[in-house]
Amino acid sequence: MDYARRQQALRDHLGRLDALLVTHLPNLRYLCGFTGSSGVLVMHRGKPVFFTDGRYTAQARAEVQGARIVIAKGSPLSAAAKWAGERGMRGLGVEAQHTTLAARSALKRTMGAGSRLREAGGMVEKLRQVKEADEIALIRDSVNLGASLLEVALKQIRPGVKETDVAAEMEYAARQRGAEAMSFETIVAAGKRSALPHGRATSSPIPARGFVVLDFGVILRGYCSDMTRTVWVGKISRSERDLYEAVREAQQAATEAVRAGVTCGEVDHAARSVLRKARLDRYFMHSTGHGVGLEIHEEPRVARGRQEVLAPGMVITIEPGVYIPGRGGVRIEDMVVVREGGCDVLTPATKALMEL
Amino acid sequence: MDYARRQQALRDHLGRLDALLVTHLPNLRYLCGFTGSSGVLVMHRGKPVFFTDGRYTAQARAEVQGARIVIAKGSPLSAAAKWAGERGMRGLGVEAQHTTLAARSALKRTMGAGSRLREAGGMVEKLRQVKEADEIALIRDSVNLGASLLEVALKQIRPGVKETDVAAEMEYAARQRGAEAMSFETIVAAGKRSALPHGRATSSPIPARGFVVLDFGVILRGYCSDMTRTVWVGKISRSERDLYEAVREAQQAATEAVRAGVTCGEVDHAARSVLRKARLDRYFMHSTGHGVGLEIHEEPRVARGRQEVLAPGMVITIEPGVYIPGRGGVRIEDMVVVREGGCDVLTPATKALMEL
Repeated sequence: MDYARRQQALRDHLGRLDALLVTHLPNLRYLCGFTGSSGVLVMHRGKPVFFTDGRYTAQARAEVQGARIVIAKGSPLSAAAKWAGERGMRGLGVEAQHTTLAARSALKRTMGAGSRLREAGGMVEKLRQVKEADEIALIRDSVNLGASLLEVALKQIRPGVKETDVAAEMEYAARQRGAEAMSFETIVAAGKRSALPHGRATSSPIPARGFVVLDFGVILRGYCSDMTRTVWVGKISRSERDLYEAVREAQQAATEAVRAGVTCGEVDHAARSVLRKARLDRYFMHSTGHGVGLEIHEEPRVARGRQEVLAPGMVITIEPGVYIPGRGGVRIEDMVVVREGGCDVLTPATKALMEL
Repeated sequence: MDYARRQQALRDHLGRLDALLVTHLPNLRYLCGFTGSSGVLVMHRGKPVFFTDGRYTAQARAEVQGARIVIAKGSPLSAAAKWAGERGMRGLGVEAQHTTLAARSALKRTMGAGSRLREAGGMVEKLRQVKEADEIALIRDSVNLGASLLEVALKQIRPGVKETDVAAEMEYAARQRGAEAMSFETIVAAGKRSALPHGRATSSPIPARGFVVLDFGVILRGYCSDMTRTVWVGKISRSERDLYEAVREAQQAATEAVRAGVTCGEVDHAARSVLRKARLDRYFMHSTGHGVGLEIHEEPRVARGRQEVLAPGMVITIEPGVYIPGRGGVRIEDMVVVREGGCDVLTPATKALMEL
């Protein structure tokens, strides 16, 4: 990973800040490679300084790149602010989306009298939106490992099997195939539960007929993957097949709308208008997608009316769905990389309807 | 769960606040039973009101107890603040440890002119420290399920097996036995890696001789468990056995120090002074324990000098360890319930040294 380039890109955006105190863990990993659970990177115009506590002495030395390491006695955040203050840095930025009111109060108590705290918004997240070629390669590996779990799920799914049993087999296979963890709680939502957009696997048995929504992903070498497929158990009716095909068309239309220069809102609109024509748009109550990388949900948000413009190298999900209470739901999700004239679909699995 | 009692206990502590906007997910679950990923409970002197978004309509209706439900069009937090402002509530508390600077800014934009935001600190966490009998029963189930995974690990551990393979078998068994998830990333740290206090399982093989630290837990019906055992692979030397026994004695001394009325610092001191006598205290660089419940790390912190007084019904870990760089480490951890004259040890596994 080209940490020097990333650090310089952030430096170029410091503006009126003398330093940015980076504390959000995925941002730390992105800027200097640290994967522990507590640390602060002081990004200023000179060489960055990384503060952590005694539990991470060995890990920081092994991982941190392009920054001097300081093991703080007390809170790393206070030590970092003190260090910056002593060097005459007065405008100290903190990550507004990740700094709590309690942390700010603690910081203010230790900061030098002349220093000012400023709320900085998503500076590192903005850089992280556009993935480097190395990152896309890692994401592709994570997507492929994730997609290989679909087959594991399909072997398990039959009436009477518990949703959690399906999830257990998928997660076990993920671990055996090298995943660090699942990227979020595995969703296995069968029958009427498929109408819950966030139907985490429960001990409910899979019914004799109905949709099963499978939404899952892994973390591999730090990078997340995310995919959804919906299958039918039993023999499907015409009207249920129509529901499935409407979502599939919406997913395809949104995917075809993706290219550099298009706004996120336009991609969302492409999915939503297919569903409107099928009179299903009122059952699509979430957004069409989101960025994925070191975190499962990143910028940009692909949602109604969003004006953010897609750029080459952004990696996003395309995942429209419909959820009809008391009846069932369908969601289909791929990950794609934005390119100049279109996009590369990363997720290798078929979207044709499967009847099990 | 006695949500009415919990809500009333919080109401009794509102003090100068007209309402507290509760957003921290474990606090929401504690106060009204909601287990989704986004919501706000307005706790005021009348009937609480729960705000969430359209994704959680069905789930909120199924889960939320003792509160009126409102499905917000936009941000539930803004909707909640607006609702409170329209009813003349001016002093609005937010959870300082869980509210970001960005969320505060968004709130301030939607709040009524006469309203004031106040930082409230850990009010619900304080209530959550003392567990009800129902909660202790659930925690006991979670501890027992967690402890049953030790046997799974012991069957796997032998030279050459990867740490992640051990973790995979433990996590698979956890799922099969009904766990929702692991309560944190499973630690399997073998050989020299046992000297890392946070040695998450890696693809390193278990060496022919050395300690293996196993630190793991599950979430069962929302409640976390946490335990650590350290085993030796091969034939142990006298000096390594002494290291193990010193930690075991420290763990026992701290456990014996636990009873209602004692401070957390005194419990920490009990462990630390055993290790000081063995000249090992400088290798014990973390705290002795922490509360466990709906979250894996809760109040109280059982750390050096902490003046918080233990009360009957608190559930804490006792987990001293020593970590000698380049050589190895040992940690032993149980969960205990504080009682009037002592404590109940929940963790059912032996602490005698095992040579595998």
